[in-house]
Amino acid sequence: MTQSQSHRIADIQITPVAFADPPLLNSVGVHEPYALRAIVVLHTESGHYGLGETYGDSAHLARLERAAGFLRGTDVFKLNQIAELVEDSLRGDQGQGGHGTGGMVTTTSLADRVLSAFNVAALDAQGKILGLPVSTLLGGAVRERVDFSGYLFYKWDRHPGHEPDAWGEALDPEGIVRQARTMVERYGFKALKLKGGVFPPEQEAAAIEALHQVFPGTPLRLDPNGVWNVATGIEVGRRLDGVLEYLEDPCLSAEDNAAVRRAIPMPLATNMCVVSFNDLPEAIERKAIDIVLSDHHFWGGLSRSALLAGIARTFGLKLSMHSNSHLGISFAAMVQLAAATENIDYACDTHWPWKRPDEDVILPGALELAGGAVAVPEAPGLGIELDPEGLARLHQQYLDCGLRERDDTGYMRRIDPSFELASPRW
Amino acid sequence: MTQSQSHRIADIQITPVAFADPPLLNSVGVHEPYALRAIVVLHTESGHYGLGETYGDSAHLARLERAAGFLRGTDVFKLNQIAELVEDSLRGDQGQGGHGTGGMVTTTSLADRVLSAFNVAALDAQGKILGLPVSTLLGGAVRERVDFSGYLFYKWDRHPGHEPDAWGEALDPEGIVRQARTMVERYGFKALKLKGGVFPPEQEAAAIEALHQVFPGTPLRLDPNGVWNVATGIEVGRRLDGVLEYLEDPCLSAEDNAAVRRAIPMPLATNMCVVSFNDLPEAIERKAIDIVLSDHHFWGGLSRSALLAGIARTFGLKLSMHSNSHLGISFAAMVQLAAATENIDYACDTHWPWKRPDEDVILPGALELAGGAVAVPEAPGLGIELDPEGLARLHQQYLDCGLRERDDTGYMRRIDPSFELASPRW
Repeated sequence: MTQSQSHRIADIQITPVAFADPPLLNSVGVHEPYALRAIVVLHTESGHYGLGETYGDSAHLARLERAAGFLRGTDVFKLNQIAELVEDSLRGDQGQGGHGTGGMVTTTSLADRVLSAFNVAALDAQGKILGLPVSTLLGGAVRERVDFSGYLFYKWDRHPGHEPDAWGEALDPEGIVRQARTMVERYGFKALKLKGGVFPPEQEAAAIEALHQVFPGTPLRLDPNGVWNVATGIEVGRRLDGVLEYLEDPCLSAEDNAAVRRAIPMPLATNMCVVSFNDLPEAIERKAIDIVLSDHHFWGGLSRSALLAGIARTFGLKLSMHSNSHLGISFAAMVQLAAATENIDYACDTHWPWKRPDEDVILPGALELAGGAVAVPEAPGLGIELDPEGLARLHQQYLDCGLRERDDTGYMRRIDPSFELASPRW
Repeated sequence: MTQSQSHRIADIQITPVAFADPPLLNSVGVHEPYALRAIVVLHTESGHYGLGETYGDSAHLARLERAAGFLRGTDVFKLNQIAELVEDSLRGDQGQGGHGTGGMVTTTSLADRVLSAFNVAALDAQGKILGLPVSTLLGGAVRERVDFSGYLFYKWDRHPGHEPDAWGEALDPEGIVRQARTMVERYGFKALKLKGGVFPPEQEAAAIEALHQVFPGTPLRLDPNGVWNVATGIEVGRRLDGVLEYLEDPCLSAEDNAAVRRAIPMPLATNMCVVSFNDLPEAIERKAIDIVLSDHHFWGGLSRSALLAGIARTFGLKLSMHSNSHLGISFAAMVQLAAATENIDYACDTHWPWKRPDEDVILPGALELAGGAVAVPEAPGLGIELDPEGLARLHQQYLDCGLRERDDTGYMRRIDPSFELASPRW
């Protein structure tokens, strides 16, 4: 780093990519054969680059392109200014679409959602310029390894019309236990989370109980994505006393979740009803939740996620991390953030095991999931390097696959025309 | 910056200093002839240094020395670790004394109070190493100039037994107006604050009204340091409707201030009842205040003051900045912090005009107060350099003056044995 060099943003390339995704079931449908992401590559006039990753829906891509136009020429060290310029780029935007979560979380902050990948890319570039890991730019690593939970899904054995995948079917407690065994064997997870909201609550509770039998002492979580009513949330919560580490988003509204929370013995977590800074004052006043599942993709990137962590600490909220299907850039960003966040109170979620190892946009080897954890990279920036070939290949896959939005519901309906959205469903 | 270099803390020198201070009156007594500060000079193994400034009371000095022992060998980029080590150094400390505010604010966080100067010094060193101003390390400057308010005090014309000072006496509205004219002429202040709590409230309200006559349109503030009861706070607040920009700490407790707040037409500010992160949840729940007067000396330094700013923004609190008698290091730190904080909503307080220009521990010229504002330095770190001669001179003054604690009350009683502390007094 020399002061005379210009670290202004010379160019930002935004590339939509698609990577293979298994048929993972959830409350709004099923994952399509490809998950979409947008890869942000930011170049400085001084010849450095930084990486960011975010949702790949076309409405989101259009916003990213527009924001990128505002950001060119800005110093990559001016994070506050980058945030302001992204806000400026969204003036007049009505905020339709581009939520990136298949309709499950639609109330995130538009500005923070668009800012996120640019904040990550700017921090990556800063770190590469300064020779410092992003964790240091966030105040310094407080741990050498970041713990993740094994993320279990009900799933079919294959996408209709495709070959079966290596994971096999999981549509009942036995299938979920089999999946968990594979997950734990392969990655050493010490906590497990089941994505619920797919089958009637008693079946999902039975799956959790089966996991508890096979993995006694392992912290377990259940996440029905808000499709239960208050009575169901309370019933399942009480049934799983001593079994669940926490219950996640039993209901959709903060009010309903607060009602469940008061009646169940375990903490209540959310990544659906507290998803932006605007939600915090009311949720804290109502005492609606115990645990915020932070997600830098919708909390404005790493700098603002650090603010969320400070707020959680100040107001006595616990903290963990939410995940969507993601590639290595997002994984690296999650690891750097968790490394520098003292109050990450629980193992974080990740979809990492569901991604094929041969599909990514970063060079392999930087992030190894072993013993249920990832060692925090000490290399500059995010600790990863772009793989231009991988990026080109996944971009071609994006072009070829024809998907332009995440649409779990539409895909499910093409397979099962009787599928209906319902919230609460049970 | 090269990665191979070690930026571990090789040494920390803590030097108590004393600088001349006029006989400024307040609710607990009067400023003594010398104000005490501790100067922290942190040296890295790579040959860089960083500056911090904090209270100079002996109990505080002992804690700084103890913390410094814990910090040697720590990487200057590991701010989280520095905070943890400071906490470790305070285990078993009962927290007596060393508040540094002459008994006016005694409920600040011990750990944050001790951490502050080390956080500032570490950031200064980081900036000097990286060639970046501290404002950039805090997310980037959002303004080129930081506005300050002219801080008016009732005062005697001299310390008993000394020569008169250049400011002269100010014991009534005319004296305050005269002082304000000098302040505004010399520094161009566009906002004025009167330290009250000295005379009966009606006299202080009359002084504010006199200022309003002479400086119509200039935002005015009055701060009786919590020595009024609720009825007085409401009476003065209503009397000064349309005159005061905000009323500061009319009462001592959050509860009493909240009661005043509900009944007066202007916002209510505090640097006495919300002085640590622990105070925030209750104050926000009670809606006790409108404006937090932040102070990095008791909010844990610049990193945690940035968190306070984020909390203020999230919960709809306004933000300004409190000041004690200080030297150039603290002034530079305030300027860097305010530069990088989007939601500094009001001109900040500073005692800068009350310090003799020929007494400081930094080289002159970096911080010029003109047009009521200071241009944000763009030089690395805090934008200032240590003046070893100045430091030696003010340390000698510390040794010679014999003061070891700030004791406004004891000094006042030696002059006026009938002086009694009282809260509320009116």
